[in-house]
Amino acid sequence: MTAVPIVEYWFDFASTYSYLATARIEAAARAAGVVVEWKPFLLGPIFQRQGWNDSPFNLYPAKGKYMWRDLERSCARSSLPFRRPSVFPRNSVRAARVAMVGVDDGWVALFAQAVFHANFAEDRDIASAEVLVALLEGIGLSGREILARAESLELNPRLRQQTERAEMLGIFGVPSFVVAGELFWGNERLDQAIEWARSGASPR
Amino acid sequence: MTAVPIVEYWFDFASTYSYLATARIEAAARAAGVVVEWKPFLLGPIFQRQGWNDSPFNLYPAKGKYMWRDLERSCARSSLPFRRPSVFPRNSVRAARVAMVGVDDGWVALFAQAVFHANFAEDRDIASAEVLVALLEGIGLSGREILARAESLELNPRLRQQTERAEMLGIFGVPSFVVAGELFWGNERLDQAIEWARSGASPR
Repeated sequence: MTAVPIVEYWFDFASTYSYLATARIEAAARAAGVVVEWKPFLLGPIFQRQGWNDSPFNLYPAKGKYMWRDLERSCARSSLPFRRPSVFPRNSVRAARVAMVGVDDGWVALFAQAVFHANFAEDRDIASAEVLVALLEGIGLSGREILARAESLELNPRLRQQTERAEMLGIFGVPSFVVAGELFWGNERLDQAIEWARSGASPR
Repeated sequence: MTAVPIVEYWFDFASTYSYLATARIEAAARAAGVVVEWKPFLLGPIFQRQGWNDSPFNLYPAKGKYMWRDLERSCARSSLPFRRPSVFPRNSVRAARVAMVGVDDGWVALFAQAVFHANFAEDRDIASAEVLVALLEGIGLSGREILARAESLELNPRLRQQTERAEMLGIFGVPSFVVAGELFWGNERLDQAIEWARSGASPR
């Protein structure tokens, strides 16, 4: 029994469809009286254990071609700016470590929105420390100080554990939403996940 | 310029999510003044050219486990009966050939609904000629006569051409919807595809 219904939001900064979910999850959850727990992790290791050494959107060209067109249409429908990144997928390790600090400090939502915007609307290199510092400064934070914390030794095992936890939850793609152990996959399932949390529905 | 807006519906009888789309596409299209062109084809050959000799839901267990749970939830939300089939995916060649006859004769929608219901609500073997005859009789048709037409030599190349056409359109999964060359993938995109057809939106 929890007093406030919770949706866990599992995402990777390299993920195109996580851009769409990140842009709307806080407002959608708030409107339903649901709290979002942000769970940055790395999808790469999970893909690798499925035998993929690259994004499936690169490995399967027809699927990739469709995804970019679908993303363009979806961004237009959501009035979100979109520019196809010149590099895909971008390395998301450093941004994920910064996001872990943001979870601790309470600014992860703002930071995540800034990173996804940089990657998918401005074609900026979110793997770069300089870009991340600039994004942190842009939301009024001390960029270099936070980056130093993100690059501390302690963050490495925490991010690895979070990734292992994602795999234990059955997560195989992002964005994913988990409500009391119930898994929802894809931006299209966000509203269903929030409804699940709000209504206290439990798996049969 | 077409007088009546058209959505092409590309599907395979083995596909779980095509069950959901088939159950609602005619009513949804009719409400929007859009006509559905049914396009049965075989996804297997397209999967094989991607290096898959089985459904990705079988090849990737985490994805498969999620799909069955998600399908169960989605059927419940749509008040559709669901029983997990004891065999998946079922061979859909014979049913697809019958459906081609149904496209010619104008009863494909009723037949497709019956086949998906048999596969995913009743766990019946839709690869069996006897089952297909029974399903045809159930919608008031001459089962054996239609089956004989479906098994005529002429249908083979037509179904193969339809599958090649699907691949040319960039189709890599089902259900898919095509509106004037614009591709939409997944049951979640049905409403968007219908809207695209209705509004005459064209690709940039």
